[in-house]
Amino acid sequence: MADSLVLSVDGMGGDSAPDIVVEGIDIAVRERPGLRFQIHGDADRIGALLERFPRAKAASELVAAERAIGMEIKPSQALRQGKGSSLWNAVAAVEEGRAHAVVSAGNTGAYMAIAMFRLRTMAGVHRPALAARWPAANGGFVVMLDVGANVQADGEQLVEFAIMGEAFQRAVSGKAKPSVALLNVGAEDLKGHEEIRSAAKLVRDAGVDIDFQGFVEGDDISKGTVDVVVTDGFTGNIAIKTGEGTARLVGQLLREALTSSLMAKLGAAIAYPALARLRKRMDPGSFNGAVFLGLNGLVVKSHGSANGPGFASALEVAAKLATSHYREEIADNLARLSAAEAAGVAQSAG
Amino acid sequence: MADSLVLSVDGMGGDSAPDIVVEGIDIAVRERPGLRFQIHGDADRIGALLERFPRAKAASELVAAERAIGMEIKPSQALRQGKGSSLWNAVAAVEEGRAHAVVSAGNTGAYMAIAMFRLRTMAGVHRPALAARWPAANGGFVVMLDVGANVQADGEQLVEFAIMGEAFQRAVSGKAKPSVALLNVGAEDLKGHEEIRSAAKLVRDAGVDIDFQGFVEGDDISKGTVDVVVTDGFTGNIAIKTGEGTARLVGQLLREALTSSLMAKLGAAIAYPALARLRKRMDPGSFNGAVFLGLNGLVVKSHGSANGPGFASALEVAAKLATSHYREEIADNLARLSAAEAAGVAQSAG
Repeated sequence: MADSLVLSVDGMGGDSAPDIVVEGIDIAVRERPGLRFQIHGDADRIGALLERFPRAKAASELVAAERAIGMEIKPSQALRQGKGSSLWNAVAAVEEGRAHAVVSAGNTGAYMAIAMFRLRTMAGVHRPALAARWPAANGGFVVMLDVGANVQADGEQLVEFAIMGEAFQRAVSGKAKPSVALLNVGAEDLKGHEEIRSAAKLVRDAGVDIDFQGFVEGDDISKGTVDVVVTDGFTGNIAIKTGEGTARLVGQLLREALTSSLMAKLGAAIAYPALARLRKRMDPGSFNGAVFLGLNGLVVKSHGSANGPGFASALEVAAKLATSHYREEIADNLARLSAAEAAGVAQSAG
Repeated sequence: MADSLVLSVDGMGGDSAPDIVVEGIDIAVRERPGLRFQIHGDADRIGALLERFPRAKAASELVAAERAIGMEIKPSQALRQGKGSSLWNAVAAVEEGRAHAVVSAGNTGAYMAIAMFRLRTMAGVHRPALAARWPAANGGFVVMLDVGANVQADGEQLVEFAIMGEAFQRAVSGKAKPSVALLNVGAEDLKGHEEIRSAAKLVRDAGVDIDFQGFVEGDDISKGTVDVVVTDGFTGNIAIKTGEGTARLVGQLLREALTSSLMAKLGAAIAYPALARLRKRMDPGSFNGAVFLGLNGLVVKSHGSANGPGFASALEVAAKLATSHYREEIADNLARLSAAEAAGVAQSAG
């Protein structure tokens, strides 16, 4: 592998691939001139696009893949039939040490199944988790996990998610000591599921080196009360999609309001620069790039509906994590957790 | 009980009680001149307020209660020490047939404990559920339950929630046949928890008379894909608070944007009527009034932070339900469910 950072990219994943992939690479190279790419996919289509983006072309190696995995393919099918696809090959490049990270906007279930099969989970991690970023009132972002990799998680797994999410937040935001809490229905110690209370006890008893703040509620996510919000994949998936749906509804109503009359249109035109900044601030593309944490390799998932700048955000997440020590930090804290469990803390924490 | 509709009101519950209670009653009487109220609480304070609202005074009977239940009181304490409080007495008026419904903006846990203790659950209902309304893109609202009465629910309980939520939506919106779905992480039949899949099978097999549409995801809540979204109280509480937090964040960023420069302020001033309508459309007060469904009596919970118009919305929900047949409709569908269970459908769905 070359000295420079190499990202392996699924050229065919996403609603508007390969166009958004090549455009995203072009933007990413402008921001980080040293970055290199391997693009896996349809050589003719991607090759033609690269002619239009010379900066992207100069930074990329095009690796032909004979087919693409569709959005309707089930994870089990992807494992049986996925070999040779752009997604499979993009993941394999990380496994074989030819790239530092893989990025795809394709089929989430297929991606996760192939990544788990090829890369396996890190020692000490029971199940990987999907971590996403969410805009917070303080101007930064909150890391939330799991947002859909597993429908359930016991106390120990929630502690693993906390450890992984904390390292992710530090790698991307640069915060030295991100604060972490478990998502619950109330701040009191007695509320919520058994799993959550057991996780809170375990993270405190095990001497895990994170700034653990106990419980937060759903409205704390957007407030940015803590930097990392930990929950199981069922609750996390529903919470993040509910938040996305709400933001979309408010945006739609705002657009309707500002086009509802001549006066409203005039006001909106005068306030345009401020509204454009607001739009940018709330643009889901700025927060694009979820990460499958807990694998022996860096696996970044772009939203399927991302545009070029959104895909570039996902590439930037991959680059930041690839140049950080997030995996060593996770391993250190997982070792503390294992040691505490061996000493019987986990048992007493139930 | 008089011929007219009588609402029993906890005069002391909520952050700004009793002021918002009396103001809310005044607004509600303007909308529904026949409505009558029993206000339980501090006779001096409420009496003085009623002097300022003659319309509310003419419609109300003031019933002195020696104390109020604070927001910090735990449900178990409320049961031991709550007797004689405004909340306790307001609930008792429904139990004793002196009022058609009770409305309070007070301590949720205490309210629920006292209501369950005094009114008991309806025959065929395992646990009551808290149902709330949420604005939808189509201009109406979605009913969501459970939003926090129970942290868990099995398949059978989820079907009971579906039955109760459907009747609630019909009573308040007037829709003849509201559509209902279970909240899940994917629309496929194989996804999600065992409880949800078992509920989907049971509701279909049991011949329950509702328009059941299967599964929806978090972003379907704001879209208004269905009229009633059913989930357990843990997920529902987190989803609704995440949505509230997101709406608040977008609102805050919009206010910041529209005051960020002189031009932005000018534009906002010109577009003011449209922005004011948007604000009204998203005002949480318009959707205020959650209901504890499944009790032998109508119990409506106002947000603790509601203002006068918001409290009036909760009173309107109580009035609409009190003049509907929601309880008979629930009983009919519960009977279908029990009959199917007796015939062994529940076991095979188990």
